[in-house]
Amino acid sequence: MVEDVSSRKAFAEEVCHAAGERALAYFRDRENLKVDSKGAQDWVSEADKAVEVFIRDEISAAWPEDGVFGEEHGARSGTSGFDWVIDPIDGTTNFVNGIPAWTIVLAGVTGGTTRIGVIRDPNVDETYAAERGAGATLNGKALSVAAGVPLDAGTVSVGYSNRVEAAHILPVIADLIERGAMYHRNASGALSLAYVAAGRLLGYVEEHMNAWDCLAGQLMIAEAGGRVEDQDAQEMIRRGGRVVVGTPDVFPELVGICDRAWGG
Amino acid sequence: MVEDVSSRKAFAEEVCHAAGERALAYFRDRENLKVDSKGAQDWVSEADKAVEVFIRDEISAAWPEDGVFGEEHGARSGTSGFDWVIDPIDGTTNFVNGIPAWTIVLAGVTGGTTRIGVIRDPNVDETYAAERGAGATLNGKALSVAAGVPLDAGTVSVGYSNRVEAAHILPVIADLIERGAMYHRNASGALSLAYVAAGRLLGYVEEHMNAWDCLAGQLMIAEAGGRVEDQDAQEMIRRGGRVVVGTPDVFPELVGICDRAWGG
Repeated sequence: MVEDVSSRKAFAEEVCHAAGERALAYFRDRENLKVDSKGAQDWVSEADKAVEVFIRDEISAAWPEDGVFGEEHGARSGTSGFDWVIDPIDGTTNFVNGIPAWTIVLAGVTGGTTRIGVIRDPNVDETYAAERGAGATLNGKALSVAAGVPLDAGTVSVGYSNRVEAAHILPVIADLIERGAMYHRNASGALSLAYVAAGRLLGYVEEHMNAWDCLAGQLMIAEAGGRVEDQDAQEMIRRGGRVVVGTPDVFPELVGICDRAWGG
Repeated sequence: MVEDVSSRKAFAEEVCHAAGERALAYFRDRENLKVDSKGAQDWVSEADKAVEVFIRDEISAAWPEDGVFGEEHGARSGTSGFDWVIDPIDGTTNFVNGIPAWTIVLAGVTGGTTRIGVIRDPNVDETYAAERGAGATLNGKALSVAAGVPLDAGTVSVGYSNRVEAAHILPVIADLIERGAMYHRNASGALSLAYVAAGRLLGYVEEHMNAWDCLAGQLMIAEAGGRVEDQDAQEMIRRGGRVVVGTPDVFPELVGICDRAWGG
């Protein structure tokens, strides 16, 4: 039984804030940023790596018995039963191109369950945070998803990556448009999930996301009154999976749209 | 012959900055914002109207003989031969939903030619400005479009609105994906055009835009070394039109994609 979940959440908010300031310094000096390709349309910069090292070091100092799993530097086992999942910069393509839509993401998992999630957007000074059973906040203020807005009066974000057949998003966009929804894609999945929690988007769907992209946002949406397809967090850490989230008003429709497009 | 184009550009930068601060005040007090529907998925708030009135008043005081054409309050003829085109808030859907991706847009036209353009993003303190023949800048620093980046290593933004058949964007997205490009849609056309000028996106395509959404950004892209489909600015003010812009590397491909999707 892991204690101190609330203390870890407060710690996570502080670390993400500090990590965001470090990332911003790289972002503002982008002319000198070293960027490598991890594959087609998949980038990593020295900022991603350095920010992850910073977060890992902070975790090791504060919670030396916890496990750590990060996008850029792999896994380190722990003994406490509490595992951290790090995305040092979500939206790396935006980051390396200079688009100010990227975030620092940190989730905390025990067993198969995400317990805490923090998403920090340093570009506009917004910190989203959630603890299971204790609600979700934006800069300390309680969050709730949009209520009473049907698909034809709202916007759904549709994500994709080089890990799936890109054309698979076409029937999803077609179906959304047919129902009168607008679609959105800002190339930061975690930021889009935070927007759903904050009532700014009605939903988010993506055929495959990795744990570091989605666990924090999924918890936030659930804690803000939204609906989330059930997943085992440890299984997501192992191989990722599909992500469908939305307001209670539109979630069943979104599940139907994705089942038809990607198989149920 | 209109003189003082450079003075008008400096004035436009100041006015857009001040207008952005006014818009931000409404944005931060969004709980009390009055929002009306202009049609399906087409919104207007009291902020749009008030910010346009502010800009119109500033223009009337500084350049009483100029014409003014705005999204929310229609046209007023001038005698100087210089016409202002105002989008008080581009990205109103983002604005009313709380997504910090919206801009203040001001263009200046003589005859059929856009002479100056300013796009102000107050959320991240960025002012894009251009004067025909004198280059484009971001916060005073010279801008240039991306160079040497093919479609399969970059991102193209695809816009749409309720003024066209929404399904018309599907073949465009399909074609982009087929070529290995990523697509983007952040729901602020002017902001996306500014991103092309700044080298952050490779291109932007939309089947129909209004003059207030696109004239400033099109000029900026041309002045930053990008390519823009030729249009008569006065004709755009009358009825709008299709917008295809891009880096020299990808522009011909984008024109081909749009011709096939929408008819040449």
